[in-house]
Amino acid sequence: VTLHDLTRMKEKRRSDRAELDRLLDEELVGTLATVTTDGRPWAVPMLHARDGDRILLHGSTGAGALRRVAEGAEAVLAVHAIDAVVLATSLFEHSANYRSAGVRGPLVRLTGDEALTALDALADVLVPGRRAEVRGNLRKEVAATTVLALDITDDSWLLKVSDGDVDEELDVVPDDVWTGILPLHRSFGDPVRSPWLPADLPVPPSVTALQAAGPQRRHRRGTNR
Amino acid sequence: VTLHDLTRMKEKRRSDRAELDRLLDEELVGTLATVTTDGRPWAVPMLHARDGDRILLHGSTGAGALRRVAEGAEAVLAVHAIDAVVLATSLFEHSANYRSAGVRGPLVRLTGDEALTALDALADVLVPGRRAEVRGNLRKEVAATTVLALDITDDSWLLKVSDGDVDEELDVVPDDVWTGILPLHRSFGDPVRSPWLPADLPVPPSVTALQAAGPQRRHRRGTNR
Repeated sequence: VTLHDLTRMKEKRRSDRAELDRLLDEELVGTLATVTTDGRPWAVPMLHARDGDRILLHGSTGAGALRRVAEGAEAVLAVHAIDAVVLATSLFEHSANYRSAGVRGPLVRLTGDEALTALDALADVLVPGRRAEVRGNLRKEVAATTVLALDITDDSWLLKVSDGDVDEELDVVPDDVWTGILPLHRSFGDPVRSPWLPADLPVPPSVTALQAAGPQRRHRRGTNR
Repeated sequence: VTLHDLTRMKEKRRSDRAELDRLLDEELVGTLATVTTDGRPWAVPMLHARDGDRILLHGSTGAGALRRVAEGAEAVLAVHAIDAVVLATSLFEHSANYRSAGVRGPLVRLTGDEALTALDALADVLVPGRRAEVRGNLRKEVAATTVLALDITDDSWLLKVSDGDVDEELDVVPDDVWTGILPLHRSFGDPVRSPWLPADLPVPPSVTALQAAGPQRRHRRGTNR
């Protein structure tokens, strides 16, 4: 096992769709990779929201990034989480515990009511409950947005997971070299209000709930559309 | 501004190389995107280490992932950090504070002493100081590893940063709608030792230092090679 090799271990491939959904729901930002019209690789970080068997993406219309992939081009959304650093007895065996998913397929453009609904779904993923607290999207705002869908089908995705302890395959493990894992956590800090607001304006329920749930919260949309 | 649009704001492009280096050094895992021989997009998460003007990557020889990009293929390494959720007065203006980098270029394979040195550099990034505590890489281990370099040149990279407050361009901001940011932090938890170890074996300096420094620590390699 090479140091922190995120791709090698074939036996780490997982086929449980629920595990894929969990990763996609926890990690709100992935990397969308595609091929430009002149055959070159292209990649950009992208917020995504899973709605059942469909992954929703969006970007500004005409601003460049999504224009290149909006016309049915094949894309890969790569999403990963690093859960721990794994410390072994030799440098070579050091690695990380991680989850890594790739979903491949053509991007389908959504318009009209489908686009409006998808933008609401994306908002619900970013800050659950916030839609009840602020003005919703206007038609002209939706029109200024490119909304894309990437469908999850039986054979369109790949999931790799590494969550093992260290050196499991050694016959004899040394007891004088410290080995183990160092878990990696994420959390939200305290909310910072805009400077023009009155000091007694309470933090709204959506922000309090999001902070309490933490970045790894899962949104509770169905697994079927 | 669309909800959490990570790509739209052209004015957010930055040209400060030191900012690029900071992001690359803080975010140890990026996504490597390339084009397969049959013209399809391909992407995989990858540990990386910056050594001056060179980004180092590695993977297992023959195991698939890196074979496709080892022959001088053009690739893009996309690295991002999400620093906060930004809550605005309308759903449409919600976004995130983020940093996003792309470095593009051909991948060059390193061999022999160069590969050995690069693997040491990668180890120093993952767990600084660990090399002094465990057995180093053997020649046969290095030979089983594909080590690649991606050079950072004046025009090979792009950096976009969003760190603004909300609604800055509004003439009149409402004072009865809570707006602001919710910062996102990362930290290491307590180390978990392998179950076979004696309880009095102390946690080594490398692990203690890494936990104290946190995931965003910057390794202190030079900015020039």
